[in-house]
Amino acid sequence: METISYLGPAGTFTEAALKLAPEAIGKEWKPVANVLEALHDVQLGSSVAAMIAVENSIEGGVTASQDALATIPGLRIVGEYVVPIRFALAVRPGTPMDAVRTLAAHPVAYGQCRRWLQRMLPEHAHVPAASNVVSAEMLFQTPAIADAAITPVTIREQVDVELLHEDIQVNPTARTRFALVTTRTDVPPRTGRDKTSLIVELPEERPGGLMAMLEQFATRGINLSMITSRPIPEHPGRYRFVVDLDGHLHDARIADALLGLRRYSPSVTFLGSYPRAVASPVAVDPAYSDATYAEAEAWFATLER
Amino acid sequence: METISYLGPAGTFTEAALKLAPEAIGKEWKPVANVLEALHDVQLGSSVAAMIAVENSIEGGVTASQDALATIPGLRIVGEYVVPIRFALAVRPGTPMDAVRTLAAHPVAYGQCRRWLQRMLPEHAHVPAASNVVSAEMLFQTPAIADAAITPVTIREQVDVELLHEDIQVNPTARTRFALVTTRTDVPPRTGRDKTSLIVELPEERPGGLMAMLEQFATRGINLSMITSRPIPEHPGRYRFVVDLDGHLHDARIADALLGLRRYSPSVTFLGSYPRAVASPVAVDPAYSDATYAEAEAWFATLER
Amino acid sequence: METISYLGPAGTFTEAALKLAPEAIGKEWKPVANVLEALHDVQLGSSVAAMIAVENSIEGGVTASQDALATIPGLRIVGEYVVPIRFALAVRPGTPMDAVRTLAAHPVAYGQCRRWLQRMLPEHAHVPAASNVVSAEMLFQTPAIADAAITPVTIREQVDVELLHEDIQVNPTARTRFALVTTRTDVPPRTGRDKTSLIVELPEERPGGLMAMLEQFATRGINLSMITSRPIPEHPGRYRFVVDLDGHLHDARIADALLGLRRYSPSVTFLGSYPRAVASPVAVDPAYSDATYAEAEAWFATLER
Amino acid sequence: METISYLGPAGTFTEAALKLAPEAIGKEWKPVANVLEALHDVQLGSSVAAMIAVENSIEGGVTASQDALATIPGLRIVGEYVVPIRFALAVRPGTPMDAVRTLAAHPVAYGQCRRWLQRMLPEHAHVPAASNVVSAEMLFQTPAIADAAITPVTIREQVDVELLHEDIQVNPTARTRFALVTTRTDVPPRTGRDKTSLIVELPEERPGGLMAMLEQFATRGINLSMITSRPIPEHPGRYRFVVDLDGHLHDARIADALLGLRRYSPSVTFLGSYPRAVASPVAVDPAYSDATYAEAEAWFATLER
Repeated sequence: METISYLGPAGTFTEAALKLAPEAIGKEWKPVANVLEALHDVQLGSSVAAMIAVENSIEGGVTASQDALATIPGLRIVGEYVVPIRFALAVRPGTPMDAVRTLAAHPVAYGQCRRWLQRMLPEHAHVPAASNVVSAEMLFQTPAIADAAITPVTIREQVDVELLHEDIQVNPTARTRFALVTTRTDVPPRTGRDKTSLIVELPEERPGGLMAMLEQFATRGINLSMITSRPIPEHPGRYRFVVDLDGHLHDARIADALLGLRRYSPSVTFLGSYPRAVASPVAVDPAYSDATYAEAEAWFATLER
Repeated sequence: METISYLGPAGTFTEAALKLAPEAIGKEWKPVANVLEALHDVQLGSSVAAMIAVENSIEGGVTASQDALATIPGLRIVGEYVVPIRFALAVRPGTPMDAVRTLAAHPVAYGQCRRWLQRMLPEHAHVPAASNVVSAEMLFQTPAIADAAITPVTIREQVDVELLHEDIQVNPTARTRFALVTTRTDVPPRTGRDKTSLIVELPEERPGGLMAMLEQFATRGINLSMITSRPIPEHPGRYRFVVDLDGHLHDARIADALLGLRRYSPSVTFLGSYPRAVASPVAVDPAYSDATYAEAEAWFATLER
Repeated sequence: METISYLGPAGTFTEAALKLAPEAIGKEWKPVANVLEALHDVQLGSSVAAMIAVENSIEGGVTASQDALATIPGLRIVGEYVVPIRFALAVRPGTPMDAVRTLAAHPVAYGQCRRWLQRMLPEHAHVPAASNVVSAEMLFQTPAIADAAITPVTIREQVDVELLHEDIQVNPTARTRFALVTTRTDVPPRTGRDKTSLIVELPEERPGGLMAMLEQFATRGINLSMITSRPIPEHPGRYRFVVDLDGHLHDARIADALLGLRRYSPSVTFLGSYPRAVASPVAVDPAYSDATYAEAEAWFATLER
Repeated sequence: METISYLGPAGTFTEAALKLAPEAIGKEWKPVANVLEALHDVQLGSSVAAMIAVENSIEGGVTASQDALATIPGLRIVGEYVVPIRFALAVRPGTPMDAVRTLAAHPVAYGQCRRWLQRMLPEHAHVPAASNVVSAEMLFQTPAIADAAITPVTIREQVDVELLHEDIQVNPTARTRFALVTTRTDVPPRTGRDKTSLIVELPEERPGGLMAMLEQFATRGINLSMITSRPIPEHPGRYRFVVDLDGHLHDARIADALLGLRRYSPSVTFLGSYPRAVASPVAVDPAYSDATYAEAEAWFATLER
């Protein structure tokens, strides 16, 4: 059976993303310790895909993901999934709030819920956990080293706990965006609500260099939904840019922009075109539609003979 | 025999341009009264080509030329020629300077030489002539109505006069640029020192509209050697732009820019690609060379499968 | 009495422009032979102003005007006026159409009316005239050398002729734009429907250079109503640009653009801000209004202390 | 004594950044649990400054930092510091490598060192620690729950351990960039090697909107050293941009760009100008130097009167 690697164990937000992915149905899900490990599984072929966080992660690794996608050759994103980040206070069934003295929590999750804890459990002791699922499992260790745990609100799929409070994190609308990464070189079919991910190095560092790059998109009516500069470790003072575009490789304007981009910079990595998590269709200015491209081609063909 | 129309009579600067054109050899040269007439001959097919002034003309008609090229369909420029504008003071052989009382001159040529005349012939009377050649012919009318004439320095090819002074015009380096216009729809082969002429209407009048148009050239490393806005008579407050680009339709970057331009504006008139009068090759930034275009296409082909 | 120079004689389209100019009332109008002469009068101080054609002239001299404005220091435009170009066929009172054998006409006007003449007077002979007014005066020479004349439709203010036909020119909506040029260094007050004229040399010749210049306007929401490239005679292959902007030196966005332009190019000539002939107010995007400029300044002042 | 908050405890990389900051000398350093807590201390005035990670953090919180800087009003960065991220394997003095069975480590640090551990300690058990310092302290708990710990290479300043191996992290050149954040509203003096940080919301979401923003920098020769888009939680589909510019508020081009930016977007947050960690001076194109700005102002002053 084909395998998909993800930041485990079962019960993490990354696993929640896998549950949203049609491509993950009927595959074996292999929990791994971090993003690099998941991507290496894909690179080596031991897994057919990896689910990794690419924006806003509570479980870490976003810049690591971006840097890995830039440096590991042959990776392709085939889908994206957005998971709300919601934490709960979990206890052994029957434990009342005022019996909680010790609290198991992954340090990052603990930080996210700290404000609520200061108000509601000002006297507790923190016992660090290796993940947001292990924290729940620690409630059942013998001898018991924790009375309560910070867990995803979905934890009961993994561990038989009772949730005393939900949404205890500081940011009520936090979401993490995940990408399903493969080595497939075919591109998922166009759906009209697609996104294209790229990594581009500027050919030289100069004022306006970034703008010259973005001009390739603006001049073709292409919207960017994400951009991040990342320093290139091997070339101090130089940057690569991780960008998400609205549109699909099979859209004429995206294909045209990729060609323009590749002429501008010899270092362009195409990370894939895939349906975006937001289901609304991409709005396309008629000036840059496939029909307009076809019309210009037809006109051009009349210029000679 | 095939005919080429030009602003006559024989001896005008326009005829001098014809003498520079290889395409004009062995054709019949038909003098006409103005640019519109010459272009209509071409449009009707009674002439295979017309030589018209397109920049800086001393004989008038530049904006008329531009407007005609924009509105008469099917015209193509196949060559450009630059003629220095040099005027002489011509007399009947043997006439001394101090015998000159009356001076025949086309009014525009007269204006060009006025400063010299004020210094050298402060007392003369001006007799208007219909062209820069007719002025010379008027020296031999009976009764004589002029003692001297302003003529091109080349006038002796037409009329047997004596030149008392050369280069009497106010601007010693004045030049007129001419274009040979046809209805041919094949494009002269690429020489590496080519120019492409276009007329483009902005799709709407707004600040930045012109810049959006020019971006199509800048983003492909294309230099403009001429640009002129012309009001569109039928649409007050709207403009068309007459532009000359360095490069040939068969250059990948020019073809690409034409496609981009046509998508941007539904009203693009391709006036032709042809060797420019200046013989130096067009400098091409390697980032926009045919090789770079080919390389990007090759890269693009690897993105799928 | 103060004097204004113009392309004479009385009765020309240039004089018609003077009649539209409030600044010309009560001044002496001095007819001169061409644009250069008119501008030199202003430069020398013998005239306080000159009326010159700056677009689409039927009487010649537009590029000459542009080049003169670029090279004669200290000139300022203080007003613009648009005159419709309408020609008539004039005769001695009582002359019927079928008695016309010879026709006096300035060669450029003759070219403009040629198509009508071919249809209506196919057998006439052309007698060149030095101006569109002299042609009418020639009707009354003794012996009579012309039966009819091409003149402006307004000719009866100068010469007692009869007009057999009006609007005989090829282009029924032709207009010429004129500018009143002075050496005044104060700027006419802002009216809300102003235009600013500039001449700018690019600092270096390179693809995209023109766009970098235009960016100074686009990035401040400024519309260009005219642009023309003019070769710089002293620097072959280099260009200056004559541009008209919508707006006034006292508009914050225009002042800001002028500063940006001057930083971009050391060679910027400010030719003046003045009410445009079209009376409609300039539309200003609120993003570039004086209020927005003031608001940004106020915000900026809060950044420190 | 004035207090500075930082992500503690003593011994973290964030504390290492504090040791690099001249401003931190002689202040009390208050360890807190996360970035938000540190910034709230500053906002409330209980601390005069906070040291927070702003790029590439191993201890988490970069996007949290960016979002907090965007939403907490009145914060200013006054300095930046770069700390190399180097991990060691620490043991109780005298413990040999082959005696290590259990390993205390913060989960994120554990992920970073996982590859090395798989090779060198394939059989160990992971005991999670709440921080990179607590992991070392756990070596001395009774009963001993860990034989080794992953710690910063500088851990011996806090805990008396022996380091068996240094630089065991996967990325040998990893660095984290930190910012010292205050509520001071004066701006540190210009040093010639300064950086300016901003957060800008686009006024509307449209293709080319980002480019229009960047144009404000490009058109003034300003280099961006960092850019990141961040979704705005309250406005789905809209973004703010965190940008670092090379230059100081007191540089004319930066001041000019801020004004242009504020006119473009009503939502600009100035996060401060401060010496950048990289000590090399900012290269300034003469076209955008203070001298060029002054020269343009002087020219402008001559346009009237």
